[in-house]
Amino acid sequence: MKLHEQVRCEGVVVSDQFLRVDGFLNHRIDPTFIEEAGRQLADHFADQSVSHVLTAEAAGNVIAFETARRLGACVVYAKKGHAVTMASPLSRDIVSPTKGTSVTLSLSAEYITPGSRVLIVDDFLYQGTTSAALAGMTQEAGGQVVGFGFVMAKEFAAGRSLLQSFDVPIVTLVSIRSLDAKTGAIDLVGPASS
Amino acid sequence: MKLHEQVRCEGVVVSDQFLRVDGFLNHRIDPTFIEEAGRQLADHFADQSVSHVLTAEAAGNVIAFETARRLGACVVYAKKGHAVTMASPLSRDIVSPTKGTSVTLSLSAEYITPGSRVLIVDDFLYQGTTSAALAGMTQEAGGQVVGFGFVMAKEFAAGRSLLQSFDVPIVTLVSIRSLDAKTGAIDLVGPASS
Repeated sequence: MKLHEQVRCEGVVVSDQFLRVDGFLNHRIDPTFIEEAGRQLADHFADQSVSHVLTAEAAGNVIAFETARRLGACVVYAKKGHAVTMASPLSRDIVSPTKGTSVTLSLSAEYITPGSRVLIVDDFLYQGTTSAALAGMTQEAGGQVVGFGFVMAKEFAAGRSLLQSFDVPIVTLVSIRSLDAKTGAIDLVGPASS
Repeated sequence: MKLHEQVRCEGVVVSDQFLRVDGFLNHRIDPTFIEEAGRQLADHFADQSVSHVLTAEAAGNVIAFETARRLGACVVYAKKGHAVTMASPLSRDIVSPTKGTSVTLSLSAEYITPGSRVLIVDDFLYQGTTSAALAGMTQEAGGQVVGFGFVMAKEFAAGRSLLQSFDVPIVTLVSIRSLDAKTGAIDLVGPASS
């Protein structure tokens, strides 16, 4: 598995909770990694008539774009901060489990409407709070959440459980069973969907 | 011109200085617009042996990705904020002319090195301060700036003059001569390079 190999070889274990993927996903971007991940996510949801791929800026932007490009869907990014110029903004305050800081996500309701079939995509599934907020805003706008797609999932955290309440497919391309800060080991399982 | 038409039809003049392009570039993304813009930018720099496409998160991320994907280059995003976990960070404090707030851009020097041939890409050329900061960090890291590429340029502002000091090509796909807040008119000129 190409994606698994790259995560294992180039990911840097920062702690038992955090994996740094700055070398190919979060600071320097390897387009071949993104193309492969986008292709796999698009393939999983090809029969879902996805109209919108929704993510939260900025980490998920590129993977959302590549997935949407292949699905023929458009992308919507929830923006950080309060939306002073946004028409009909929806918003959620969430606490980033990575940074520990609170951030407001804003989404213009003119871009998600009744009839929208929305796939929520991000780089990591961790606690699931951001994705759950995006799903909640989608439903508030009258759209339908058709699934969640993540490049990587920290399976030792609560994210998958939280998102299962939406009762739609959760696709994760690289599932991380554990991170060992002492040895730097990244314990991966195969691709999983639920 | 497809790009010009979309800017003219879907752009919303907010003031004489600001054009809102939330409908296809900055909040909702139209992949066909990004594909066309990325293709045109990549074509302009196809003979420059570009190794890195550099931008500042988050507005430029997707256009930088699409340009890099077509050039066979990798992407590097300068990150907002101080880089606590970044190896060998370079940084610049800049004032956003759009938001009026100060922001620190950080770039890991491990990703731009002597020998890197760097194309700097962004959605808008306005005052040019962000792009000049990216070019300065590239040079500080020992890399070579081979050009600047922008989807849109506000030709009534000082950006082009500022970047001309780097003495490399500046490619702009859609050049905006003026914005009229009273009538909502967007006055475009044809594609321009200098």
